[in-house]
Amino acid sequence: MDKKNRKQAVLGVDIGATAAKICYVDRDGKCLSAGASVSTGTRQAADVFFKRLHESAETLRAELPPEYDPAGIGIGAANGNYYNGTIECSPNLGWDYVDVRAELGKYYSVPVAVTNDANAAAIGEMIFGAAKGMKDFISITLGTGLGSGIVANGEMIYGADGFAGELGHTIVDPNGRECACGRRGCLETYCSATGLCRTIEELICNTTVSSILRGVSYNELTSAKIYAAARSGDVLALAAFETCGETLGRKLSDSVAHLSPEAIFICGGMAAAGELILSPTRRALEKYVLPIYRGKVKILPSGLAEGNVAVLGAAALVWSVLDKAGKC
Amino acid sequence: MDKKNRKQAVLGVDIGATAAKICYVDRDGKCLSAGASVSTGTRQAADVFFKRLHESAETLRAELPPEYDPAGIGIGAANGNYYNGTIECSPNLGWDYVDVRAELGKYYSVPVAVTNDANAAAIGEMIFGAAKGMKDFISITLGTGLGSGIVANGEMIYGADGFAGELGHTIVDPNGRECACGRRGCLETYCSATGLCRTIEELICNTTVSSILRGVSYNELTSAKIYAAARSGDVLALAAFETCGETLGRKLSDSVAHLSPEAIFICGGMAAAGELILSPTRRALEKYVLPIYRGKVKILPSGLAEGNVAVLGAAALVWSVLDKAGKC
Repeated sequence: MDKKNRKQAVLGVDIGATAAKICYVDRDGKCLSAGASVSTGTRQAADVFFKRLHESAETLRAELPPEYDPAGIGIGAANGNYYNGTIECSPNLGWDYVDVRAELGKYYSVPVAVTNDANAAAIGEMIFGAAKGMKDFISITLGTGLGSGIVANGEMIYGADGFAGELGHTIVDPNGRECACGRRGCLETYCSATGLCRTIEELICNTTVSSILRGVSYNELTSAKIYAAARSGDVLALAAFETCGETLGRKLSDSVAHLSPEAIFICGGMAAAGELILSPTRRALEKYVLPIYRGKVKILPSGLAEGNVAVLGAAALVWSVLDKAGKC
Repeated sequence: MDKKNRKQAVLGVDIGATAAKICYVDRDGKCLSAGASVSTGTRQAADVFFKRLHESAETLRAELPPEYDPAGIGIGAANGNYYNGTIECSPNLGWDYVDVRAELGKYYSVPVAVTNDANAAAIGEMIFGAAKGMKDFISITLGTGLGSGIVANGEMIYGADGFAGELGHTIVDPNGRECACGRRGCLETYCSATGLCRTIEELICNTTVSSILRGVSYNELTSAKIYAAARSGDVLALAAFETCGETLGRKLSDSVAHLSPEAIFICGGMAAAGELILSPTRRALEKYVLPIYRGKVKILPSGLAEGNVAVLGAAALVWSVLDKAGKC
């Protein structure tokens, strides 16, 4: 085939605590292959994992339309560091320090870009999603914890060390709930799937409101069950979403005072609750924000399909790197 | 004189609540003229003020070394907006909306750049001061209130509306001290010259510690008096600085979780207290910050002479605009 008719695809990789999802993605955010999954949960050594990742990716590559050439690999992972191309201090994966670029360099010569999963979601929103054309926005991922990615002046904010954008660990109450990070009162102990479950226990303790969730143990509780209860009119479940949004909106008023974003996107598994979480967040933000910002900041759902956001974000990351380098 | 031997100077203007300071400044941050002052405190109409500003500036221009040509005007003012070139909703000046570029356009054809005074201080730090070469830092100005300017990826963060960087109005305690902005518990009600005075009253109320400041009314109290008392060993005054730094450091841990800056500069009148404010701020930041940031973020005094920082910042602002436009 004539070289000028060749097209480029990138490999998006979302490394989670139990599995890594991979997919080849084109310039417009379209998945060019079926997705594949590589298990991560068995505390395997990093070199073993990346060898398996390479094997799966080669299988996908065989499915690529023949006119496509792989142009880069984007990796989103908890504790991924953009500057160093590393994954550092990742308790879930059992890795202290992995040089991802070096591991993938054993198999590939294309550019490799790494960042944390929440930053990847923000870049995905900017390149493929609802933040297209926006220069200043924040993406909040409500999952097991609360991840975030900040874009200002049209650029991802990585900070001096590559670890900027940890809004889940801003402090709501210095004497508040214990956090896995060793401190107290972090935003993600209130606003995340886990935070929502903790709020249910707080409401069970502090109120006499009847609820189907009083029959569910904490270990059995999930944000999906709370959402189902809320949809069926369970007052306690509705109050938990209200409390979660109130805390999130109040704390985001601080983020607005830092960054004055055009919009804040709420994505991640909990975002499936839609207005149940978006409405109280909007109300609290407007209530607590400095008057000069009132009515300016949009609280929006992600423009990307939930199942794909992390892989698309990882792909968008490497597209943005390739764009900057003038390689596509 | 041969054109190629001509040099450029900019006019730096710091518009405060009682006076505007002006000075011609060269590319290296050197003042080329004596400074001049134009009163602002009489609620004069904006067009009258800018006419008087022009007259004073022309007097200074006559003192400029003959090889210098004026190349631009930089304005720092509370509620200055970089995008619009305006000063908006300024209660101190009695101006609702002033198009500064239009006002100065009556007298000058050179570029005019406007921003708020705390952003100007950050740009001054970056261009002329201790942040030279840093790409990610925050500048905190502790004056009557708390101003701030944020630089990330080597760029000033203005946000979607030009009003980013209002850390003085992040919330320490939603049920806390009343703030002039109409809300409660804003950082500047604790950490500023005014906040320090309020803390003295709180300590007088809550403790039995003897202090020379028990004989000073709130109206007579100033941060300079508290500093003098602290220097002479007054335990209450020392406790007020400690409390101020503790609150500032704790709240800055949230700013670090947003931006992961290389350094945070503390400037403004209260920064004259030096380690009395810097030490407790550092200790609290290290105590409250997320572990991945520990030991990374420097809390530093400004590298600019206190009396000149706002005028130099305003000059630096227009130098940075001229640099971007390739006009110098």
